[in-house]
Amino acid sequence: MRIILIGYGIVGQSFTKLLLSKLVDLYNLYGMKPRIVACVDNKGSAIDTSGLDIQRLLEIKKNKGTVGEYYRNKSSQLDPLQIIENIDAEIVIELTPTNLKDGEPGLSHITSAMKYSKNVITVNKGPLSVAFPSLIELANYNGIMFKFSGTVGGGTPILEFAKRCLKGDRIVSFKGILNGTTNFILSKMEEGLTFKEALKDAQVKGYAETVPSLDIDGFDAAAKLVIMANWLMGMKVALEDVNRIGITQVKTQEVSKALKKGNAIKLIASCENKKLVVKPMEVSKLDPICVNGTLNSVTFSLEYAGNQTIIGRGAGGIETASAVLRDMIEIRENIINEKNWF
Amino acid sequence: MRIILIGYGIVGQSFTKLLLSKLVDLYNLYGMKPRIVACVDNKGSAIDTSGLDIQRLLEIKKNKGTVGEYYRNKSSQLDPLQIIENIDAEIVIELTPTNLKDGEPGLSHITSAMKYSKNVITVNKGPLSVAFPSLIELANYNGIMFKFSGTVGGGTPILEFAKRCLKGDRIVSFKGILNGTTNFILSKMEEGLTFKEALKDAQVKGYAETVPSLDIDGFDAAAKLVIMANWLMGMKVALEDVNRIGITQVKTQEVSKALKKGNAIKLIASCENKKLVVKPMEVSKLDPICVNGTLNSVTFSLEYAGNQTIIGRGAGGIETASAVLRDMIEIRENIINEKNWF
Repeated sequence: MRIILIGYGIVGQSFTKLLLSKLVDLYNLYGMKPRIVACVDNKGSAIDTSGLDIQRLLEIKKNKGTVGEYYRNKSSQLDPLQIIENIDAEIVIELTPTNLKDGEPGLSHITSAMKYSKNVITVNKGPLSVAFPSLIELANYNGIMFKFSGTVGGGTPILEFAKRCLKGDRIVSFKGILNGTTNFILSKMEEGLTFKEALKDAQVKGYAETVPSLDIDGFDAAAKLVIMANWLMGMKVALEDVNRIGITQVKTQEVSKALKKGNAIKLIASCENKKLVVKPMEVSKLDPICVNGTLNSVTFSLEYAGNQTIIGRGAGGIETASAVLRDMIEIRENIINEKNWF
Repeated sequence: MRIILIGYGIVGQSFTKLLLSKLVDLYNLYGMKPRIVACVDNKGSAIDTSGLDIQRLLEIKKNKGTVGEYYRNKSSQLDPLQIIENIDAEIVIELTPTNLKDGEPGLSHITSAMKYSKNVITVNKGPLSVAFPSLIELANYNGIMFKFSGTVGGGTPILEFAKRCLKGDRIVSFKGILNGTTNFILSKMEEGLTFKEALKDAQVKGYAETVPSLDIDGFDAAAKLVIMANWLMGMKVALEDVNRIGITQVKTQEVSKALKKGNAIKLIASCENKKLVVKPMEVSKLDPICVNGTLNSVTFSLEYAGNQTIIGRGAGGIETASAVLRDMIEIRENIINEKNWF
């Protein structure tokens, strides 16, 4: 199974580490021999159609800052789009940073991979929150598999749970805490910190994304909400369809006041009656949705089986990498099933 | 798709109600036309190889107390085992009451159905906690599907979540609150009630099972733990392998003392280092596992993706019936996939 890896930051490197430690398992359990035939980061690329040496890839990235230094004497002149077009592979894994404005460069990488009949895995929320319906259509048209379980919940399989485990029932509505950074900040404010102090703490601990606005203005939660609404509720929506309020105006006094009533103020993303909302809300501490620290949570309200909540870490390199690996195994199993038809 | 329904109590009746309300959906979404060709309760049976009238079945049960009165002029002389042997059907649904001593009569119903090559769905914990490994072996030997998602978590798909959504990762250990009745009692004791008062309240509200010992002595939680250990961890264990302590000795003072520390006393079922334990334990109120009232919760500790918790109602007629329906849809989909092989 040949893989083109576009984007080699924390998740990408964690994914290759995971591959290394799982090589034997993957072969024994799934008959899978993954080979990375191309790897691209923001400064260069490395290509070997018989499979790059993962250990060397990790070392070069760590020591030289780019996989473009993989070969001592030659450097690759190909850009990601040329690689996607010209290098044979079963899967393109798109892991470039999230851009919620126009989804680029991830969007072009993904659409290009689909056009060249390559299956796609991504954890990049940008392309999906900008163009979910047309990406699904393009994937179907080209008969390829499109997997994105790491876009929501990091390693916590929120999308799979809703899609696979609830057959015969129906999701009436759902709501959740979809952003760990804001949840960390609000949890810290319960201890008496102001918003600014708590934000600083989150940045020091490395929880805040590169641009803090993504988290604190609710964009990240809204992007995940859009993905869930499209995929799980059959809606055709984008980021601008979300009624969104961030946490920058939440006051420590409000948090303390809620706390005295046994409640907490949380940034809740909800999909009810086809309305998408992200805003700070007071929720009971007894509600399973009310998790602390960087945890994420989602409660699905079902027609028959009542409320079901799933809780887990919503971010982290190795956690999100485990979602990419899960998607890869799914693609492998689907390819095998398809072959049996002929 | 022909169904033999053995046991027609709350879950059985809820299941037939669910079927009635879902008939159109089941056909449109899954191409499924379920027909109940035989229905048995503890006083009689009704048989119609072209499909019983579900509405009439529900009315007769309600008005006469047994489906044996389905036909005015003739009564069926067949017992469950004869029906399983002689009536053609794709699925036997076994819903008789749980008996944790020897698993009967459910165990005989299930093994008989397997021997006559009928797929089996059950929510009966008895047979599984007594003879899990041999039931799986028998199912495999006879090439039939054996589904039991309603045995753990009622309508909450705990088993499916662990089995389907965590591919590529590994469950290192798990623990949970698997019995809603004891959790209700312990929650009530936080309000100051004694164990006896809280038990009475649970009985008045209809939460306690027929024999209270099943719940309060930890047998029900232990049975679910055994099912999870066998199915999810590949262990070969039965009820006697669980180190089990119930909640009858928990004192209101201990509960209050824990509460002051921000903790709660919960009946925790755990599987760690291949050891199975059910006992009252002090857990932090901040731990996602710490749910209130009749809720159930399970936290899976994964090798890569960290702790993941799933929370939902662990009992209820319609909730558990939704698990039976889910199993039925799975069997249908598997039958279709198998046919494509030839």
